[in-house]
Amino acid sequence: MDSEEEELVRKVVSGELPVHSLEKSLGDCERAVRVRRSWLQQETQKDLTALPYEGFDYASVLGACAEMVVGYVPLPVGVAGPLLLNGKLLQVPMATVEGTLIASTRRGCKAITESGGAQAVVTQHVMSRAPVLLFPSAVRAAAFKSWAEDPLNRDALCEHFNGTSRFARLKSLRVIVAGKYAYARFCCETGDAMGMNMISKAVNAVLDFVREAHFQDMHILGLSGNVCCDKKPAAINWIEGRGCSVIVEAIIKADIVEQVLKTSVDAVVQLNTAKNLVGSAMAGMSSGGYNAHAANIVAAIFIATGQDPAQVVESASCITLLSHADNGKDLHISCTMPSLEVGTVGGGTHLSPQKACLDLLGVAGASPGKPGEHARQLAMVVASAVMAAELSLLSALVQGHLMRAHMQYNRKDAHANPPPEPSPFRDVVN
Amino acid sequence: MDSEEEELVRKVVSGELPVHSLEKSLGDCERAVRVRRSWLQQETQKDLTALPYEGFDYASVLGACAEMVVGYVPLPVGVAGPLLLNGKLLQVPMATVEGTLIASTRRGCKAITESGGAQAVVTQHVMSRAPVLLFPSAVRAAAFKSWAEDPLNRDALCEHFNGTSRFARLKSLRVIVAGKYAYARFCCETGDAMGMNMISKAVNAVLDFVREAHFQDMHILGLSGNVCCDKKPAAINWIEGRGCSVIVEAIIKADIVEQVLKTSVDAVVQLNTAKNLVGSAMAGMSSGGYNAHAANIVAAIFIATGQDPAQVVESASCITLLSHADNGKDLHISCTMPSLEVGTVGGGTHLSPQKACLDLLGVAGASPGKPGEHARQLAMVVASAVMAAELSLLSALVQGHLMRAHMQYNRKDAHANPPPEPSPFRDVVN
Amino acid sequence: MDSEEEELVRKVVSGELPVHSLEKSLGDCERAVRVRRSWLQQETQKDLTALPYEGFDYASVLGACAEMVVGYVPLPVGVAGPLLLNGKLLQVPMATVEGTLIASTRRGCKAITESGGAQAVVTQHVMSRAPVLLFPSAVRAAAFKSWAEDPLNRDALCEHFNGTSRFARLKSLRVIVAGKYAYARFCCETGDAMGMNMISKAVNAVLDFVREAHFQDMHILGLSGNVCCDKKPAAINWIEGRGCSVIVEAIIKADIVEQVLKTSVDAVVQLNTAKNLVGSAMAGMSSGGYNAHAANIVAAIFIATGQDPAQVVESASCITLLSHADNGKDLHISCTMPSLEVGTVGGGTHLSPQKACLDLLGVAGASPGKPGEHARQLAMVVASAVMAAELSLLSALVQGHLMRAHMQYNRKDAHANPPPEPSPFRDVVN
Amino acid sequence: MDSEEEELVRKVVSGELPVHSLEKSLGDCERAVRVRRSWLQQETQKDLTALPYEGFDYASVLGACAEMVVGYVPLPVGVAGPLLLNGKLLQVPMATVEGTLIASTRRGCKAITESGGAQAVVTQHVMSRAPVLLFPSAVRAAAFKSWAEDPLNRDALCEHFNGTSRFARLKSLRVIVAGKYAYARFCCETGDAMGMNMISKAVNAVLDFVREAHFQDMHILGLSGNVCCDKKPAAINWIEGRGCSVIVEAIIKADIVEQVLKTSVDAVVQLNTAKNLVGSAMAGMSSGGYNAHAANIVAAIFIATGQDPAQVVESASCITLLSHADNGKDLHISCTMPSLEVGTVGGGTHLSPQKACLDLLGVAGASPGKPGEHARQLAMVVASAVMAAELSLLSALVQGHLMRAHMQYNRKDAHANPPPEPSPFRDVVN
Repeated sequence: MDSEEEELVRKVVSGELPVHSLEKSLGDCERAVRVRRSWLQQETQKDLTALPYEGFDYASVLGACAEMVVGYVPLPVGVAGPLLLNGKLLQVPMATVEGTLIASTRRGCKAITESGGAQAVVTQHVMSRAPVLLFPSAVRAAAFKSWAEDPLNRDALCEHFNGTSRFARLKSLRVIVAGKYAYARFCCETGDAMGMNMISKAVNAVLDFVREAHFQDMHILGLSGNVCCDKKPAAINWIEGRGCSVIVEAIIKADIVEQVLKTSVDAVVQLNTAKNLVGSAMAGMSSGGYNAHAANIVAAIFIATGQDPAQVVESASCITLLSHADNGKDLHISCTMPSLEVGTVGGGTHLSPQKACLDLLGVAGASPGKPGEHARQLAMVVASAVMAAELSLLSALVQGHLMRAHMQYNRKDAHANPPPEPSPFRDVVN
Repeated sequence: MDSEEEELVRKVVSGELPVHSLEKSLGDCERAVRVRRSWLQQETQKDLTALPYEGFDYASVLGACAEMVVGYVPLPVGVAGPLLLNGKLLQVPMATVEGTLIASTRRGCKAITESGGAQAVVTQHVMSRAPVLLFPSAVRAAAFKSWAEDPLNRDALCEHFNGTSRFARLKSLRVIVAGKYAYARFCCETGDAMGMNMISKAVNAVLDFVREAHFQDMHILGLSGNVCCDKKPAAINWIEGRGCSVIVEAIIKADIVEQVLKTSVDAVVQLNTAKNLVGSAMAGMSSGGYNAHAANIVAAIFIATGQDPAQVVESASCITLLSHADNGKDLHISCTMPSLEVGTVGGGTHLSPQKACLDLLGVAGASPGKPGEHARQLAMVVASAVMAAELSLLSALVQGHLMRAHMQYNRKDAHANPPPEPSPFRDVVN
Repeated sequence: MDSEEEELVRKVVSGELPVHSLEKSLGDCERAVRVRRSWLQQETQKDLTALPYEGFDYASVLGACAEMVVGYVPLPVGVAGPLLLNGKLLQVPMATVEGTLIASTRRGCKAITESGGAQAVVTQHVMSRAPVLLFPSAVRAAAFKSWAEDPLNRDALCEHFNGTSRFARLKSLRVIVAGKYAYARFCCETGDAMGMNMISKAVNAVLDFVREAHFQDMHILGLSGNVCCDKKPAAINWIEGRGCSVIVEAIIKADIVEQVLKTSVDAVVQLNTAKNLVGSAMAGMSSGGYNAHAANIVAAIFIATGQDPAQVVESASCITLLSHADNGKDLHISCTMPSLEVGTVGGGTHLSPQKACLDLLGVAGASPGKPGEHARQLAMVVASAVMAAELSLLSALVQGHLMRAHMQYNRKDAHANPPPEPSPFRDVVN
Repeated sequence: MDSEEEELVRKVVSGELPVHSLEKSLGDCERAVRVRRSWLQQETQKDLTALPYEGFDYASVLGACAEMVVGYVPLPVGVAGPLLLNGKLLQVPMATVEGTLIASTRRGCKAITESGGAQAVVTQHVMSRAPVLLFPSAVRAAAFKSWAEDPLNRDALCEHFNGTSRFARLKSLRVIVAGKYAYARFCCETGDAMGMNMISKAVNAVLDFVREAHFQDMHILGLSGNVCCDKKPAAINWIEGRGCSVIVEAIIKADIVEQVLKTSVDAVVQLNTAKNLVGSAMAGMSSGGYNAHAANIVAAIFIATGQDPAQVVESASCITLLSHADNGKDLHISCTMPSLEVGTVGGGTHLSPQKACLDLLGVAGASPGKPGEHARQLAMVVASAVMAAELSLLSALVQGHLMRAHMQYNRKDAHANPPPEPSPFRDVVN
């Protein structure tokens, strides 16, 4: 830090120079960060040395991803794979600080791939936004619902909605009324973007039209009324879907269950019912917590690929089902995830490191073909990796207790009969 | 990459050298990463150049945080503050790629701090773990419940539980039975650690004792039976708490609502009821989604401070309440968050950058005083920052539509009456 | 009982005469009941004298409403009213054994009627049924979903569905897939019948067609797969509706709140937020428990009018909202009930006493006009009576504590200042 | 109706005689009912002849069960049995208007009884009540929680609580805080009464004490704050229990599954998973809807035995589990019902017909032994009958589609191969 910067810091501390707009006033992002760090250290009397800041492309962040920047946290990225998905081999990037998570997912990928691979399908792909509207009476709110859901008004709504963007295409509109409030849940296509900004703009346009032309007594309380429902565990997302609705499945051969996963088909099927169905039922889930640790994998891939980690809340909704395959001896596994909110453009996806991770999966940027193909492929990758991780953790849980039982049984002559080698996945218990 | 490394890459590709244990076999973590990157690029025919890898302390990650590492993603860290919390001024580090999130939180902090600050309190601090146990009959499962909850057996259970660690202290045990399954929910103190590993070890010890001494017919299906409930949106966490249960409140002066938040007390109170109470009710929440965007802030601070981002799922459970303060003109706001799972030791908290962020808050490492003080302080910071962000977003939502209404009204003579300046927070709508 | 009957009883006891088909074998229903009572008394050594049986029209029950009949329980029917609903004065029949319930509802009716009456509207009226189907793979289940929801196949589905009845008209079909399972949720109009039998028949016809013509690999596991969802507290009913979706509202004048309900607008608004919104949120509701005691009224009217009391489970789903009316001094109240399952034909509605209760409301039998008008009118009556009862109970709860506070305050000179007269509604606290 | 009564009617119509207190003013309940019927017929211009009124013991209802009485609805009562429960043979009374329900339950009883009977156990028996309290700040609400849950204050709380009744015994108190609101959930024993009135009285006494002696700034908003939670589908009841928590199980022999239930063990196990676990999960249940039609049986026995039918909402919470018994060929079934709210004293249990039904089960009135034994026995009977009905309906659902498949297959030569006889249970599909 040169004396010029020291003078800048002094000015920030004294308030002459606003700390939030240093990038703009200094015209040099990294210098701005450096000055802000110094200010922060003075303010808080803390040492920020260990927080790295050099060599980061701050320009890509400015006005787009973060403010008041003082550095960055690096999260290690590992890969789980090879994962054979819909006939294609993949290495899946995961950013995490939870030990054994990547290794465990990788073991699941191995079991799936060696058994012939996973099949995934996207059954729906829409973003939703539901403003909250207030009417003078419940009767008027009901009248609005009736009008908005009438097929006769569909074209007018689409015209105003679709006109706001090249990609936004209104697919459905349903209004939920509660007394004088109406929550108008718009669902639309958004191409390869996760789409929250796109749909917000389109909804605003429709609301302006509706208020001007049809319901002057409609009062728009807020663009989001929590029926959307973003970043909250809502049953409506679980039931009706949001983002990509994905189902993935695989048949794992009995001998691979034994050799790779060190357990038996019977044992994992039993545990899945006891834990992911009955256990979750007893814990009071209403929005998709019928899985072992889907959130771990969703979070790790989301962070690696520039998605919004706060959307893990509903994107991790998943029901994991295990059963004997039709031949009675192999294992059928599936993961159903109705609200995976992903995009390959927008958000953090344009940052180079995150883009490299998307590129590793072949889905960086907008799809050259049908809009949304990249986003849907990313969603299928996430769901498949979730399935791999579910398989591995369930096996480790079974194995863990078999091992403990064995150790306990043989305690007295432990030297004569050495216990089985500890699982490398002992720590991942969710 | 020198020729020696090229040879290593060749060996990895050919399978002579296992790709997952390069750190061990090469004895040099960064070299291992470099070799693995080359292997990965060959495998996938993708270019990883944009994914940084140099200058990272891989040794700190090895065997603890990630496997199969090929680089890292840097997430920008900004600060929101000053936030006056329980009489102390703080700058809160947030790692995010969502634009305007930090700026918006900072605005909320300003409103709170200028109004006299926030008061927070931790009402409970326990980690929970619930193995799933199978008995030969429901009657036996019920007998186990009766035995395990009998105060007479409390001492024996504590002895086995508490003996496994310096910090683990059993606080309660409740058994939920479903047919032949019993889910034994242990709750314990875990010092400053988030505590999942600690409690797992302790629960294992108790189960061994119980099976050996009292219920030989008990079959341990899995160490976690989803009644814990980790990383899933379970009502049991919302109702009974997990990690830190925090309540935070502030009174915002009416003029600050107007000048800083650009709205009125009446308007934000009305929106909060319409969106966070009624809207959430209509969307079918059973586990704490009565807020606008708590997950955004929880995720950002979690990533910055080395917490587990997958735990955002339940840690973001929050009910935000707004009302007129007792004097009838100011605003009372509170956020109640019963399941904030945080730690200041373990997980990713030992990594230097994350530790620097903890240190910025004065909570790095184990508390020198009462065990758990650092973790509880961190939880209160998170909840307070959530409250700041709720306040700011609710205000922006109100302001957004007032502005639109104004613009629409004045459309015809827009030149004569320029619309108000757009809010910098327009994009954050959750 | 004559000697002939004694002989019959002997035969039943000995097993010569099957006890379940006495009506058929004796050709006289009341005699069959008498003989069965004797048999039951011998079997159990209990005295049934106090259970009445004479004078009941058993023929109307035979093969339609109950089997193994031994008598009847009479439930007292009272009326609450007059209730001014959509401009019409009504007396609402309620069958209950809970003291003060009718009186309290009647007080609410008085407040509503004297304030100008209630306005109700039905926003949707469909019955739903969702069979569970098993496919060889998740991919096939997804293919079925895609086919079934394709507008191109709509006509074929309607043809087979609608052909089974004069009233059944398919309105929508949505398929929820979970792994290899598909839950096909059919929604249809059912005229004035509650419609479960009607829709079951229609769904069977469609399934036969689909399996024969399109999906031979579809295995029908059960006609109901719990996504319907009948008699269980499911979020899907709360969000998407089932039966009649009703909204009712009223403005209660401030002076009537004071004189009839003995409380203030401020106080009941505050309690409603604290109890029906925040309290319910804290208790973990995902399917409509945002009310004080809707189930009480739904059950009482259901029993009086021959509805299915087991459907109270979801029919009582209700959000009660209170706010200051626009003029700032009166009270606005609304009840929103999305899944009121009622009918005026079928079930117990043909029994004379129940039919008399329907007739009291002017809705006995099939509607002479548009099919379903009677059912919708009944649903609006139920919702309005619920609103009256909510209003009265909330007021009583407020009043109860004002009274206690007053008594406590004046304890020392209680003789000088007699406490206010106890509320007649003290017992109804839900 | 004599001329004297005609004169009374005239007075009621004219308002000289208040219609709600005729019992008191005439001193003759049946006459009061007769006069009120005449008034009602004049008011509404409807004919009430078909609603019976004679021969009913109105005195038992007066001031206890109903007001404004104009007659009664008789509900047919049948019996399902014999049901072997905990070694004792029972005939279970059910009042219903849903055809085949009793017959189907009876079939399930037969399968259970012939297989050796059901075993039931009550794991908890407490009533709960949670007033909503308002404090000046969240910090004060948290202070109250801390004080109320402190073991040191336990004795004082018990003293005031237990002093209000011979039976009320405080078992636990937990406070849930949301901002400035505190919901204090008291749980207590209530002997053989369902106990809502008893606990309300006790809670009032405690609140008076607390406010006077410790928290003068506590404002009691309402005696019930919906965390209780009565007659609403709350996760808190599902997780923590309310009333009797019952588990019942049986092993059904394979040949009985085939001969009595006309299906196979494999088929019903598969359907139960598909419908009651996975289907319910997809429909978004958070409060116990993991069953086929528990509410049907709960409602029918509740009405027959004088329970509160509105409490069916949470009393029907049930998870039904089916699995292969340990020998691999028989069927294990269990029903777990954590919130069965029943009583054998109070409510409608004193009415003679209802009391006769209780007596048929040997549980009329207060238990001569340990308080609450009658209530617990009644709860076990309800749960066992639910299990019987679940078993029968699941079998009928399987059988229904096997039958349809068979019919469809043989359509072309239907004359040669007559289809199997239709199931008598075809209509009960829930």
